[in-house]
Amino acid sequence: MKALVFRDNQLSVINDRPEPQPAADEVVIDVRLAGICRTHIEITRGYMSFEGVLGHECVGVVSRAGGAAGKKWLDRRVVCEINCVCGKCDMCLTGLRNHCRQRTVIGISGRDGAFADYIVVPQRNCHRVPETMSDEEAVFVEPLAAAIQVVKQVPVDSRMKVTVLGDGRLGLLVGQVLQSVGCSPRLVGKHPKKMAFAEKRSIRVVPLEDLKPANTDDLVVDCTGSPKGLETAMQLVRPRGIIMLKSTCAAGEPLNLSPLVINEVHLIGSRCGPFLEAIEMLAKKEVNVSGLISRRFKFDRSLDAIRAAGDHDSLKILLAM
Amino acid sequence: MKALVFRDNQLSVINDRPEPQPAADEVVIDVRLAGICRTHIEITRGYMSFEGVLGHECVGVVSRAGGAAGKKWLDRRVVCEINCVCGKCDMCLTGLRNHCRQRTVIGISGRDGAFADYIVVPQRNCHRVPETMSDEEAVFVEPLAAAIQVVKQVPVDSRMKVTVLGDGRLGLLVGQVLQSVGCSPRLVGKHPKKMAFAEKRSIRVVPLEDLKPANTDDLVVDCTGSPKGLETAMQLVRPRGIIMLKSTCAAGEPLNLSPLVINEVHLIGSRCGPFLEAIEMLAKKEVNVSGLISRRFKFDRSLDAIRAAGDHDSLKILLAM
Repeated sequence: MKALVFRDNQLSVINDRPEPQPAADEVVIDVRLAGICRTHIEITRGYMSFEGVLGHECVGVVSRAGGAAGKKWLDRRVVCEINCVCGKCDMCLTGLRNHCRQRTVIGISGRDGAFADYIVVPQRNCHRVPETMSDEEAVFVEPLAAAIQVVKQVPVDSRMKVTVLGDGRLGLLVGQVLQSVGCSPRLVGKHPKKMAFAEKRSIRVVPLEDLKPANTDDLVVDCTGSPKGLETAMQLVRPRGIIMLKSTCAAGEPLNLSPLVINEVHLIGSRCGPFLEAIEMLAKKEVNVSGLISRRFKFDRSLDAIRAAGDHDSLKILLAM
Repeated sequence: MKALVFRDNQLSVINDRPEPQPAADEVVIDVRLAGICRTHIEITRGYMSFEGVLGHECVGVVSRAGGAAGKKWLDRRVVCEINCVCGKCDMCLTGLRNHCRQRTVIGISGRDGAFADYIVVPQRNCHRVPETMSDEEAVFVEPLAAAIQVVKQVPVDSRMKVTVLGDGRLGLLVGQVLQSVGCSPRLVGKHPKKMAFAEKRSIRVVPLEDLKPANTDDLVVDCTGSPKGLETAMQLVRPRGIIMLKSTCAAGEPLNLSPLVINEVHLIGSRCGPFLEAIEMLAKKEVNVSGLISRRFKFDRSLDAIRAAGDHDSLKILLAM
């Protein structure tokens, strides 16, 4: 099969990668559409020291089951959770499966991802996609779930003064999720096209260059994908306020956390979120994702697609298998 | 009067500094004993860009009142809160006086400190010292309050697995405070004499070199005073666990916070704490502070005292006026 592989510090398209074989509790998904995420760019910079097939946002059809348990998924259109867990460790047994001690993560850690003809995942990672939902919507389930995680970790209410830092794909999803729970966030950006999307969704936009440090925000969500984001967040959040950190980066950056100590700020790391809620929000059209698609590439142009995803003006880039 | 002043990047003892004059709501404290804190060393490295008289841990006797309100303090032995607040800003009006927008902080920001014959403070910052309490105990009220703040910000219970990072003065106070609420913390250190103090207080000690990163702690309190402490803390705390950051440093350090995001850790900055509770704990002998005093210097040797406080083996160094 064909696959986009990162190995020996290099990204390449391979046409003769062996098809993955499902274990008894796994299924094979025939990938139809996949999304490119900032994490991919960080992986090519060394994040997680990952080698293998990239890709963790996808929608496809289950084409094979490794055992009886997976048979119910055959021919179903699905999206799949990215954390593949043991079900037995202290994290799994205390309701924190996404933090499983033995987990592999699709296309990020210890398991091949979705930029390929086929991907193998545990059958229990699958979620059925409603028929009324297009592939172009379903491919946003994973990043939307990550955005929803913000309001799962922090009780957000309409009286809170909230800022989203970053006008990228994740920031624009987080902004919409915050709106959906009654919040009126402002979004700080620096790319005109991306800021225009937010404005169209009635999200108040402040260009980064016009931002005034005031330490008055109750909550700042850092979706910049850059270590600089936290520095800005520390200038915006009020004493005893909350910063949510969604950015994972390959490299560190000189950082002085004294403002966080002085202002007794809560800094909360945030990663993957609830798929079922993301599917429901998309099904109810509570978020707009079609406007977030910048381009769609065929798989044989996947290296161009990765490059395009790195462009400053790019929002979501999709890969069609 | 004599005073220890930091100015133009230099610490010096001055003998002819004018005595400070109290405003109507202020009192003059005749300082008897003061403690040296790690913050002083950071200030001499540029922290807070402070210039003036150092010192924010002290006990003394009120010798003058600027107005009628302060008269009740005359001749009283007192300790004083270090944040001098406006009482009118949004922080003051919402119960966060220590975060007052217009605050000055004794010996740290915008206001002369206690390494001097006299210090002027708002009369409402004073707390009476019980007669049964020695000056050597009272001088620990401020750092003990900062240690107590840890358990004010996070509900700690006996079932939690807790690590205190750092065997310095603050770490040894935090360890005892955690014990006082039923916790059995372990303390990570690297100085034999300091670790011996913890062991004498029945705190389990692990030398830093023997520490195994395991991501199993529910709570890690970083009292190292070093940017490296957070890195260690991220290796110890469990997914969704809590790191409390007590260290303020003048300089930043390259830092990659990805583990915090991946493990969805709560990082909580923590600064000043409740004086009344600290006085009560000391009065009830619930913490031992006498074992924390390494040396006592007369004021004319205050430069030696500051140097001694920087020694790796030093615990609390006191300055007698």
